[in-house]
Amino acid sequence: MKQLKIASIPGDGIGKEVVPAAIDVLKAVSEVHGGLQFEFTDFPYSCEYYLEHGAMMPEDGLERLKDFDSIFLGAVGNEKLVPDHVSLWGLLIKLRREFEQQINIRPAKVLNGIQSPLVNPKDFDLIVVRENSEGEYSEVGGRIFREEDEIAIQNNIFSRKGTERAMHYAFDLASKRNKHVTSATKSNGIVHSMPFWDEVFQDVAKQYPEIGTDKQHIDALTAFFVTHPDRFDVIVASNLFGDILTDLGAAVMGSIGIAPAGNINVNGKYPSMFEPVHGSAPDIIGKGVANPIGQIWTAKMMLDHHGEDEIGKVLLDVVESTTADGIITPDIGGKHSTQEVTDEIIKRLKA
Amino acid sequence: MKQLKIASIPGDGIGKEVVPAAIDVLKAVSEVHGGLQFEFTDFPYSCEYYLEHGAMMPEDGLERLKDFDSIFLGAVGNEKLVPDHVSLWGLLIKLRREFEQQINIRPAKVLNGIQSPLVNPKDFDLIVVRENSEGEYSEVGGRIFREEDEIAIQNNIFSRKGTERAMHYAFDLASKRNKHVTSATKSNGIVHSMPFWDEVFQDVAKQYPEIGTDKQHIDALTAFFVTHPDRFDVIVASNLFGDILTDLGAAVMGSIGIAPAGNINVNGKYPSMFEPVHGSAPDIIGKGVANPIGQIWTAKMMLDHHGEDEIGKVLLDVVESTTADGIITPDIGGKHSTQEVTDEIIKRLKA
Ligand SMILES: CC(C)[C@H](C(=O)O)[C@@H](O)C(=O)O
Ligand SMILES: CC(C)[C@H](C(=O)O)[C@@H](O)C(=O)O
Repeated sequence: MKQLKIASIPGDGIGKEVVPAAIDVLKAVSEVHGGLQFEFTDFPYSCEYYLEHGAMMPEDGLERLKDFDSIFLGAVGNEKLVPDHVSLWGLLIKLRREFEQQINIRPAKVLNGIQSPLVNPKDFDLIVVRENSEGEYSEVGGRIFREEDEIAIQNNIFSRKGTERAMHYAFDLASKRNKHVTSATKSNGIVHSMPFWDEVFQDVAKQYPEIGTDKQHIDALTAFFVTHPDRFDVIVASNLFGDILTDLGAAVMGSIGIAPAGNINVNGKYPSMFEPVHGSAPDIIGKGVANPIGQIWTAKMMLDHHGEDEIGKVLLDVVESTTADGIITPDIGGKHSTQEVTDEIIKRLKA
Repeated sequence: MKQLKIASIPGDGIGKEVVPAAIDVLKAVSEVHGGLQFEFTDFPYSCEYYLEHGAMMPEDGLERLKDFDSIFLGAVGNEKLVPDHVSLWGLLIKLRREFEQQINIRPAKVLNGIQSPLVNPKDFDLIVVRENSEGEYSEVGGRIFREEDEIAIQNNIFSRKGTERAMHYAFDLASKRNKHVTSATKSNGIVHSMPFWDEVFQDVAKQYPEIGTDKQHIDALTAFFVTHPDRFDVIVASNLFGDILTDLGAAVMGSIGIAPAGNINVNGKYPSMFEPVHGSAPDIIGKGVANPIGQIWTAKMMLDHHGEDEIGKVLLDVVESTTADGIITPDIGGKHSTQEVTDEIIKRLKA
């Protein structure tokens, strides 16, 4: 019997609606599977927590979370309560950094029954490996001079270690998939960090002679996501470029509401964290229509991460059979509630 | 009689095919218009020029170009001949910088007869105002340490002057259009430059109480380009975000081959420069199938810039009647050559 201790952080907005739904699904997985059990512990860290305690999590928050097998997160942020940079850097980005979740993986592919906004999405199935700890999100910089002379400086810091780490992850993943890695770059316009990125990519690529490669500038790459998303297998991208490509990838799939993500701690020192691509969606809070698929697919990624990819595959197949039958939420053209979609997935899982 | 002295730089690849085509169209415009004449002077600056002379343009290149009314550029870059960063920074970006073309404007809208890759593009009609001289493209940074400890640092430098300039341009433009400006930001993840960008946007917006505003993070914005491009009127974006949004915008219109652009010198000291969004497309050189519409629409922007928007509008209407009748190149699903499309546009213009 394998037991996984999961810290669940529903967070803000619809996170509070889709995390419980996905946990119910995971409980059903455990019933079906037999050899797998979950122990969930809930943490209320969120913008509401901030309003009460003046911080997104307690001072010993990291300490409380660090021995879990994984963290299962909903969404963070609600600008009506707390400024985004405070909530995000106090919780989401803090966890990514402090728990050394240096890789973010986000698949995008056509799901049966979900209408892509593209006329011809073909049968694309790609995954973005995003560097998750440095680059454009480095907290280094500041301002100088006053009034009309003011300037703001933002440093983008790219380390060879961090860049190589993301690239090795991408090549290893590609070797289990369709054996192709595309590097997202912009070395024609950004002349210090991106030529460095290209060099590291070339160096790492040499170590994987069996994997095909190409590099694409980020501007062209976003265009390809719309015209030929089926061109890609694994894409390795910097923190910012990965962020952009995965929101766009989610939109091309049909909805940001269905896209999953994993923040992976590769050195095994801390828990990894699984959170969907979507945010807290303040506009639909409490209506019972939040799409649970992003969070449920994220649960599947958590299963895969713990070596349970067989049942993970079963879960995604069940999700896809449900969407194929039109049991979907309004954001993707359906009429069903969060609860109805979740119940149906659980029913089919048990069948 | 108004006479415009235009420096034409076909540049590389299909630039050499579409610039002459668009010049023929401009000559026809002048015949039709009566009161408008062009004097074109050709400059061979390109990667081939580099191979012969060891530089993308001669040392006094700027001197030779600076007294023209405008520069009409095709495309720069051919990695088979010269590394991109050399060709681009030696010509395209050099001209943008040295001639203080600090604003880049790029419209994207549905053209009759051109199939968007979107199922439902609606009737979108937006324009991106891109800061064109600083930000993420600042040439400041470098590397330190060796081997596994190496890091690369890229500085993104945002000045209040440059940021305000782009924003004022956007608000002025919106006041002649649909009175809405969207700011492209990423202040939730990039914590020095982007909160600064947001602040300047708020300050400038106050001076235009009649213009509606919103801000969107760049990741969400790329998703909206696919799901709701009709949401936008004017978008103001940093150098990198503008670059990304305009390639994506071109793709959503139906082809990068039709998208136009203008690099605007706002202080009147130097010529502005008009160049389409597409590159030199080395794969189709010499086949006679390059889409001339990007370059011709770019010519229309040059006409607008010189106060000739009436005839500019006629020209775009003629282009649209031609595309509506299916007289288009293969990249957008047609069977016609560069020459045939150009001839048809000229014929209709004269009719
Ligand atoms: C070629 C490249 C440097 C350039 C840019 O990024 O500015 C191009 O993509 C553009 O948009 O004009
Ligand atoms: C909320 C924001 C800081 C975050 C990011 O940019 O990383 C989000 O967009 C994501 O992709 O997880």
